[in-house]
Amino acid sequence: MSRGYNFSAGPAVLPEDVLRQAQAELLEWSGARASVMEISHRGKDFIALAEQAEQDLRDLLAVPSNYKVLFLQGGATQHFAQIPLNFARRDQAVDYVLTGDWSEKAAKEAKPLAQVRIAASSADSNYDRIPARAEWNLDASAAYVHVTPNETIRGVEFHDIPDVGGAPLIGDVSSTILSRPFDVSKYALLYAGAQKNIGPSGLVVMVVRDDLLERCPKDIPKIFNYAEHAAQGSMLNTPNTWGWYLAGLVFKWVKAQGGVAAMAARNRAKAELLYGYIDRSGYYRNPVEKSARSWMNVPFTLPREELDAAFLKQSEAAGLLALKGHRAVGGMRASIYNAMPLEGVQALVDFMKDFAARNG
Amino acid sequence: MSRGYNFSAGPAVLPEDVLRQAQAELLEWSGARASVMEISHRGKDFIALAEQAEQDLRDLLAVPSNYKVLFLQGGATQHFAQIPLNFARRDQAVDYVLTGDWSEKAAKEAKPLAQVRIAASSADSNYDRIPARAEWNLDASAAYVHVTPNETIRGVEFHDIPDVGGAPLIGDVSSTILSRPFDVSKYALLYAGAQKNIGPSGLVVMVVRDDLLERCPKDIPKIFNYAEHAAQGSMLNTPNTWGWYLAGLVFKWVKAQGGVAAMAARNRAKAELLYGYIDRSGYYRNPVEKSARSWMNVPFTLPREELDAAFLKQSEAAGLLALKGHRAVGGMRASIYNAMPLEGVQALVDFMKDFAARNG
Repeated sequence: MSRGYNFSAGPAVLPEDVLRQAQAELLEWSGARASVMEISHRGKDFIALAEQAEQDLRDLLAVPSNYKVLFLQGGATQHFAQIPLNFARRDQAVDYVLTGDWSEKAAKEAKPLAQVRIAASSADSNYDRIPARAEWNLDASAAYVHVTPNETIRGVEFHDIPDVGGAPLIGDVSSTILSRPFDVSKYALLYAGAQKNIGPSGLVVMVVRDDLLERCPKDIPKIFNYAEHAAQGSMLNTPNTWGWYLAGLVFKWVKAQGGVAAMAARNRAKAELLYGYIDRSGYYRNPVEKSARSWMNVPFTLPREELDAAFLKQSEAAGLLALKGHRAVGGMRASIYNAMPLEGVQALVDFMKDFAARNG
Repeated sequence: MSRGYNFSAGPAVLPEDVLRQAQAELLEWSGARASVMEISHRGKDFIALAEQAEQDLRDLLAVPSNYKVLFLQGGATQHFAQIPLNFARRDQAVDYVLTGDWSEKAAKEAKPLAQVRIAASSADSNYDRIPARAEWNLDASAAYVHVTPNETIRGVEFHDIPDVGGAPLIGDVSSTILSRPFDVSKYALLYAGAQKNIGPSGLVVMVVRDDLLERCPKDIPKIFNYAEHAAQGSMLNTPNTWGWYLAGLVFKWVKAQGGVAAMAARNRAKAELLYGYIDRSGYYRNPVEKSARSWMNVPFTLPREELDAAFLKQSEAAGLLALKGHRAVGGMRASIYNAMPLEGVQALVDFMKDFAARNG
């Protein structure tokens, strides 16, 4: 057996160099005479690791100094609820832009905690596009505007960050963070589950502007209060230390690749290779409007659903893993995050060509 | 360098056999051609791992069939808040028994969410004992009674589970779970941060009786609702898959050691060795009432505080790691969880004897 090309939507492929380093030092990390999993998060060794990881992320994203970087738990889904808990009152409007299943879920989790408005939605066309900014119906008094810049299930991505006027913009960037440069200062808060471009599941990275943290209510439990987490350097309680450690290794790896701009060049080339072949094939099909196609998640269908099982079986045998599409969409999905090399996408395209020739 | 004997209070030592297995299969787990961190939590391979881990924990603790086992995130601290959110109303009484810093924190996090009563407390004697059951002032109408059967900071432990009458008993068993047999059915709910006897930080294991789950309110976000987590087999969102995997390896390891009864025999022997030496030494001192001394966390002081720095420096040089006591107590603390072998405690006692002889 050997490692395949892993197209899982998440938990997703990690850089092999990172896994090899983690493997080598699993029993004895640095000079600790213990695994990094076995040491106190409050000891000087782990604090140094944690601070370095934060600094590397700040460097990579060019995070302005008036933003805090938090390393949290619970998955993005927990923060679907915790964000309105911190930044809205129950009787206050919050604006959500629906571009897929994840933004729908975010809005749903906010409902018990705020007056959720749907400012825009592309649900009427099965989330195959990003609603044009001119169509958005924003409430100027909303506590915030929430967007999901990349939707993993239907493979739709914002290719730039919308201007939403005065309301703080909040983005769930789980599946796009570190894949391309963007201007952090256009967001008041961004957050990401780690298990796509950052590290293992169980870790959430949040970048939040200082003035937004001033809104966190004092009458909620401390552990739900982002300002408390920020004040304690994300060590209000024991963090996911293994996740934080691996995230730090991934940040170093992204730096070594040339940073986010270099990742973007690679990701664009991978996406162009795959979409280019799909569009030319006359066999496979991606339903998303070209201007809104995701660089990270590429769903595609075969000409007949009956072919799906053979495609999956044969692709897996060829070392192309986890291509089954989400049940909400069917067909296939290739997630091609940062850690997927161009060679993996080329191998997929080669297989797809061959399969089409054999099953025309 | 080589691995030391690690007395960290948590994140804490893990069984070396478990670490070696995790290391060996870090890049390719089972037949997945990927790391266990890189595969979908919804795929059949991970589901099988998850179910096996649950079954092994059920076997080890003899969990009755009318209890659900959940694998959650957020650390025990998050559940200090989430428990009252699920099981109490804002105007309803909840009873807390304070036996140390962790039960204090649990009560504090519940305050915004329920009417917190302190049913008993040993704060007046610096938490050096467990208040006798006869002294507890319980409210028969309380939504639940909360206890912390082992307190890591001051090293105080319940040696049996109190009978609290009709109210559901909830226990934060983070630092005692799997260390000795106990009757799960005396609790309505027990929960544990993994980073002592179960696995890495970032994972919480909860065991909860079905009838309690019926109380979970429908008007809170799903992600905060334990009944929703139970209904989805702890896969309401992406769980901490690495933590779940390692917990599964630890459960197998505990089984291979002979189960919880065998762990208890080892843990009793380790505790008797260390407390026995401390009491006989006339040099070191543990302040806790003998009947309430923890098997897991053994704080001790030296005759003069000025000796602390030398003790820490020399013990670390001797490969005895992380002995510094919590800042709230000072002195030293040896945490001797399941994964600490008797040889480690013997090495510590030998060092302590030698240090005392040299610094009498």
